Amino acid sequence: MAANTAGQVIRCKAAVAWEAGKPLVIEEVEVAPPQKMEVRLKILYTSLCHTDVYFWEAKGQTPLFPRIFGHEAGGIVESVGEGVTHLQPGDHALPVFTGECGDCRHCKSEESNMCDLLRINTDRGVMIGDGNTRFSKDGKPIYHFVGTSTFSEYTTLHAGCVAKINPEAPLDKVCVLSCGISTGFGATVNVAKPTKGSTVAIFGLGAVGLAAAEGARLSGASRIIGVDLNANRFEDGEFDLQWHKKSKKFGVNEFVNPKDHSKPVQEVIAEMTDGGVDRSVECTGNINAMISAFECVHDGWGVAVLVGVPNKDDAFKTHPVNLLNERTLKGTFFGNYKPRSDLPAVVEKYMKKELELEKFITHQVSFSEINKAFELMLKGESLRCIIKMEH
Amino acid sequence: MAANTAGQVIRCKAAVAWEAGKPLVIEEVEVAPPQKMEVRLKILYTSLCHTDVYFWEAKGQTPLFPRIFGHEAGGIVESVGEGVTHLQPGDHALPVFTGECGDCRHCKSEESNMCDLLRINTDRGVMIGDGNTRFSKDGKPIYHFVGTSTFSEYTTLHAGCVAKINPEAPLDKVCVLSCGISTGFGATVNVAKPTKGSTVAIFGLGAVGLAAAEGARLSGASRIIGVDLNANRFEDGEFDLQWHKKSKKFGVNEFVNPKDHSKPVQEVIAEMTDGGVDRSVECTGNINAMISAFECVHDGWGVAVLVGVPNKDDAFKTHPVNLLNERTLKGTFFGNYKPRSDLPAVVEKYMKKELELEKFITHQVSFSEINKAFELMLKGESLRCIIKMEH
Repeated sequence: MAANTAGQVIRCKAAVAWEAGKPLVIEEVEVAPPQKMEVRLKILYTSLCHTDVYFWEAKGQTPLFPRIFGHEAGGIVESVGEGVTHLQPGDHALPVFTGECGDCRHCKSEESNMCDLLRINTDRGVMIGDGNTRFSKDGKPIYHFVGTSTFSEYTTLHAGCVAKINPEAPLDKVCVLSCGISTGFGATVNVAKPTKGSTVAIFGLGAVGLAAAEGARLSGASRIIGVDLNANRFEDGEFDLQWHKKSKKFGVNEFVNPKDHSKPVQEVIAEMTDGGVDRSVECTGNINAMISAFECVHDGWGVAVLVGVPNKDDAFKTHPVNLLNERTLKGTFFGNYKPRSDLPAVVEKYMKKELELEKFITHQVSFSEINKAFELMLKGESLRCIIKMEH
Repeated sequence: MAANTAGQVIRCKAAVAWEAGKPLVIEEVEVAPPQKMEVRLKILYTSLCHTDVYFWEAKGQTPLFPRIFGHEAGGIVESVGEGVTHLQPGDHALPVFTGECGDCRHCKSEESNMCDLLRINTDRGVMIGDGNTRFSKDGKPIYHFVGTSTFSEYTTLHAGCVAKINPEAPLDKVCVLSCGISTGFGATVNVAKPTKGSTVAIFGLGAVGLAAAEGARLSGASRIIGVDLNANRFEDGEFDLQWHKKSKKFGVNEFVNPKDHSKPVQEVIAEMTDGGVDRSVECTGNINAMISAFECVHDGWGVAVLVGVPNKDDAFKTHPVNLLNERTLKGTFFGNYKPRSDLPAVVEKYMKKELELEKFITHQVSFSEINKAFELMLKGESLRCIIKMEH
């Protein structure tokens, strides 16, 4: 395959978003070959994340259309451009919406994964090398999304956004590690770092929050308290949606619905836990949940980790004594994983059956049915819906 | 000595604060012997800290008088009460305003020093064992201050507030480790933990801030930026106060006076440091300085540590994206040192000539001149003034 197409434009199917909020249309598009420091991936599986839906709806941002969304995926390297040394045709790989150039201060720091060159940019619809798109239809450009655009049979990316993984890893499972699951799991295991027997509160029980819970479960936390406004998620035996039943499989063994209480949820949690939880992970992006997540950790040693992305105008507000009493507040981005350096080891955690991915995958559709994945997510019925490409 | 006085009331001199803001009066007082889990210390040296002055002025709190202030000191154990096993008469010791019972969740946690039983309580003027004072004059009680009351030739304390130290350590130097110097030094070395070659901003160049700078210097930080509103502290060769000249001895090698700039100081620092400092330590308690100290750390890895105690009604406010960009915000109390377990090692750092204490000590007075120490601090002329008891 590589020999046939390397250096040439590939014509293939892609799901194009022509307008905000309108169903994607499967089109035949042209995918230009990778330029310097770029890679072209053949996508085998992709999945849908809330971020795709958010930018497809384009309610809060400058719309950029036509665009090819998609950023959670697994594929095989078709060809590489000049200067790419860590990948070669045939490698199995995960594309990532943020990158690792390897040369900037962030990449050289052990503490950061916020690469200066390839840090997520949701506004940019072109390649950073030459400012052009690699997608077109009938000669007209189609924009990229977060440098990945995986809703296409082939996609061209910056090499720094492609993690080479174990070729034996099943791409229909590990593709979910491209974004949400690694984000939540890493927030717990890399940043909150709960110890064995500790108490952890997880705010928001969507895919990211459940991945954070999975991290707490693997860390040996004994009490994992799920906090969610959706009461349906909590009543034993009375779930109306299949995936709500699953939160216990991710280790969540206690539930709090803030709506059930007349006092702030941080006070409810402090009473349940003799002063507060050891760790909390906030996965909603709601500013009040962020404040509650911080204020519900125990003084002396509590650590609160913020994952959810807030609105532009939000202000985080707390009394400084909450900090002086030796609480820690940290934010994280992509679970503090460096995409290229760290994702291969997360894949290995799955291969060793430590991290379970199957329970995140609630649905699968074929590429031609991609709009169904959007419907399932909008109705809140799916955690992750895998989209199988049809090469 | 121990044989003569153990179990008996000791009559000795103490500097009594009869009224808020009025000069202390040296009086002959009675000091009751230590009860269960208590210790009586013969104080040899004590020093004055802002917190003594703050509660003596009693502007922000319920006044409690007559009271014996003082909480930085060095002394020798005169006698111990029932159940005290870690101290015996003759031991050299530092009293501490917060304690370590050894049994509570905080004492058992490696991460906390906020003992449930003996955590600082500025309102309480009595012993926690029986709710009575151990000081009296002509039979009338005189109240304690933060469990230490070191402005007395003898003082009775809870044993959990007494750290046994190397008997060879000079008490006229190491007495300053009882509070402010350990607070600032520990905030840097135990909490901010700057690495060799890193950049650190210190907000507030009083004794605590300079101790934080000393911690940065010992950690090998290459740029230590002092931020202070007092311009006098910064102009080379034009200091009007002796101790202002000293900040360079504590490693501070760059200065920023927020008043000299039209933009927020966090922006000034970000420009000076290509995006922000690696670590910051806030030692003023001013809420705006706290926010600046947080927002001036670099994304990806920056850690801001809050030391200064804010006003009751202050709110810490920041955009949550500052957190999500992988900054960390932590508070600390007494430099995260457990008083009994950790102070002996800080004393050893001084004995090994790593930590320098002499430069903090700008003045010395005799006990009868104690009001002069207050005057020097109120005028901003002293960093630490040692008060020598006259047994």
